[in-house]
Order: sequence, then structure tokens, then C-alpha cells
Amino acid sequence: MVWNSVDTRQRLLDSAREEFTDRGLEGARVDSIAARAGVNKERIYGHFGSKDELFQAVVADALDEHVAALGLPTEDLGEYVGRIYDFHVTHPQLLRLMQWESLSLRAQPPLGEDRRAAHYAEKVAALATALDTQPSLDVAATLITLIGLAAWPHTLPHLTRLVLGPEADTDNAHCVLRAHVIDFARRALLPATSQSGSAARETAPSTRN
Amino acid sequence: MVWNSVDTRQRLLDSAREEFTDRGLEGARVDSIAARAGVNKERIYGHFGSKDELFQAVVADALDEHVAALGLPTEDLGEYVGRIYDFHVTHPQLLRLMQWESLSLRAQPPLGEDRRAAHYAEKVAALATALDTQPSLDVAATLITLIGLAAWPHTLPHLTRLVLGPEADTDNAHCVLRAHVIDFARRALLPATSQSGSAARETAPSTRN
Repeated sequence: MVWNSVDTRQRLLDSAREEFTDRGLEGARVDSIAARAGVNKERIYGHFGSKDELFQAVVADALDEHVAALGLPTEDLGEYVGRIYDFHVTHPQLLRLMQWESLSLRAQPPLGEDRRAAHYAEKVAALATALDTQPSLDVAATLITLIGLAAWPHTLPHLTRLVLGPEADTDNAHCVLRAHVIDFARRALLPATSQSGSAARETAPSTRN
Repeated sequence: MVWNSVDTRQRLLDSAREEFTDRGLEGARVDSIAARAGVNKERIYGHFGSKDELFQAVVADALDEHVAALGLPTEDLGEYVGRIYDFHVTHPQLLRLMQWESLSLRAQPPLGEDRRAAHYAEKVAALATALDTQPSLDVAATLITLIGLAAWPHTLPHLTRLVLGPEADTDNAHCVLRAHVIDFARRALLPATSQSGSAARETAPSTRN
């Protein structure tokens, strides 16, 4: 069987995503990526230049998939938080890739910064619209928090298990956690003028009941 | 100079904490830990048994330091979130150790689970008291979220930079982010009956202004 160049590139990206997700930027082995893709190791350098550039291409590929699956923030920001939560349940690779990146790069800038920053700028603009305001540092901070609320239990699953106990892996715990982060976001973002009366009581977390 | 056994153990723990923080559970080299501590590599196995057990002792040590510095949740939970935020600014090692652990162990249980779970159970109990309720899965979920709110910007610093832009490393951005997570927690946790009137308006995030 013969693959053309586009096929080879995608096979290498898929193989590299597996390897980088498992072992990180430093732990991943180019030999293993080539072997898993069934292509010669030299092709990796031909297509991507270096291991760092291959990692960058893998993150860009995973982020494109994320953008396509998730969409932008819309008016119902609780629902948006739920969508992020669900995405990371079904697509655990992106968070692991971003963790490996932050752990390995430390003070170095993110790989492929301009393109990725443009993606988040688009999200900040959509969030500002949903909040009926203009993009600002405060809106950017809110985006970081909404992503974090939803992604945090999946980012440190061992912490989640230590806090929730042996129940952490049950469907019930997942439902409680998902509903909790959605409610938490809704309550925090509710306009002050709407926070009296039935609306606030309806969204009160059950820890209050 | 002669060190006694307690000194040697602490020197190994300190050296191992540096090495594991930098390179993770899989990347760390026992040779480097021994060399940095200025002791023979065999002493590591004598004191700790294995590399995994040494990692476990390092995490326990960092967590003890965290508990001593941070204290338990108290009535002002916004202030508690601020304390967690500040702790991770001044003590970046614990979060990195926990990330390496989750990335390496995957579906295996946390190292030293019983002791660490007991620590979080104590926090859940204190949080329940602060919320005027009993410990429950909901309260545990709230603890996970409060930790996550404060720790998230430090967990993926590259994401924080991608979202906030080049301003991310300025004092102004740090102040905005810190105030934002505190306000976000306060607004979400405000009892429904207090969410009308001046209290809600005073704690409204500035994205609303």
C-alpha cells in the first residue's frame, strides 16, 4: 500500500498525538512515533523539522478539533461550561498535551503562540458579547475561570479522587460534579439585579439546601 | 562533615523535590537526586525503598508544608480562595508535583492515598461548617472548585498567557486575576437571600460595570 504525502503527514500527526499524550514533550520518542505510523523516522524531520515543531503541530491539530467540537461562548454560559466539561471527558488528550507543555517549557513562550492566541481572542470577544460588554482583561480573566471550572476536575483526576473519595468514579459523582460547575458559573455570573427572588433560589447549589 | 540519618533523609527529600518538580516521576533520575544531596545512591533505597516511594514521600512533605501554610477553609471563603492563589504563587512545586503524578499514574490510585484523603476530608468538614451544612458530595465538589479557581491560572501558565496576552506577566494582570477569582467565588457562594441589594452590587465583577 502506498500513502501520499498528505496521508503520511496525518498518520504522523495521529501517531505523535498518542505518543506525546502518553509521555510528554521530553519523554516522547521520535523512533516510537515513526514506528507507530509505519513510516521512516527521517520523514518526520522532512515534514515537521524537529520534535518541538512536531509537538506544536500536534497541539494545533488538537486545538482545531477542540474549536470545531466546542464552538464559541454563547449567551447561556452555564451551558457553555457544561460543553467544556463534556468535551474534556470525551477528548482527554488536549488537556494532557497542554499540561506536558507547561511542565516542560516553564518560562518559555507557548509553542505556536500567535495562532493559538488568535483563537482565544475570538473566544474573549464572544464572551464579551455574551456578557454584554467589551473585551477587556476582566473578560479574559472570566474566560480563564470558565475553562478552569470545567476542566479542573479532569486536569488533576487524582485530586478529584482524593477529595470525592472512592465515589469519584461513579456516574452519580460525575453528575454531581458536572451540575455543580454549571451552577457555580451561573450563580457567579448572574447580573446583580437578577440575584434576588426565584431565579437565584432555583440555581442555588444543593449544599445550601 | 558528618550528617546523621535524619539530616540525610531531609537532604534527600529536598533534593528529590527539586528533581521531581523539574522532571516528573518518570523523567527524574535517582543518580541526580543522590548527587544533588551529596549522598550515595544506595542510601535512597535504604531510606525510601524505591523511586515511587521517594516520590510519595516528597508529595507528602510538600502537602504537609501546604497544610501548615494555608490552614483550613474559614467563614470568608473568598479570602480562602485568595490564600490558595497566593500559596501557589510562592510555592509552585506542589502543583507541578501533582500534575506529574496525574500524568504518569493515569488510572492508578494516588500515591499515599489514605493519608492524603484524610487531609482533604478535614478540609471538606471545615468547608461544610463554613457553609453551615454537613459534609456531602456537594460540599466536596465545592472544595474541588474553590481549589481549582485559585490554582488554575498557575496550573496552565501557558494558557493564562495565551488568553491574557503579553500583559499576563504584569503586576496589573496578576492583581486583576487574583481579585477576579476571589469575586467569582464570593458571588457564586453568596446565600440566595443575600444576593439582592448592595451586597451583590459591591461584589459584582468589573466586567459588569
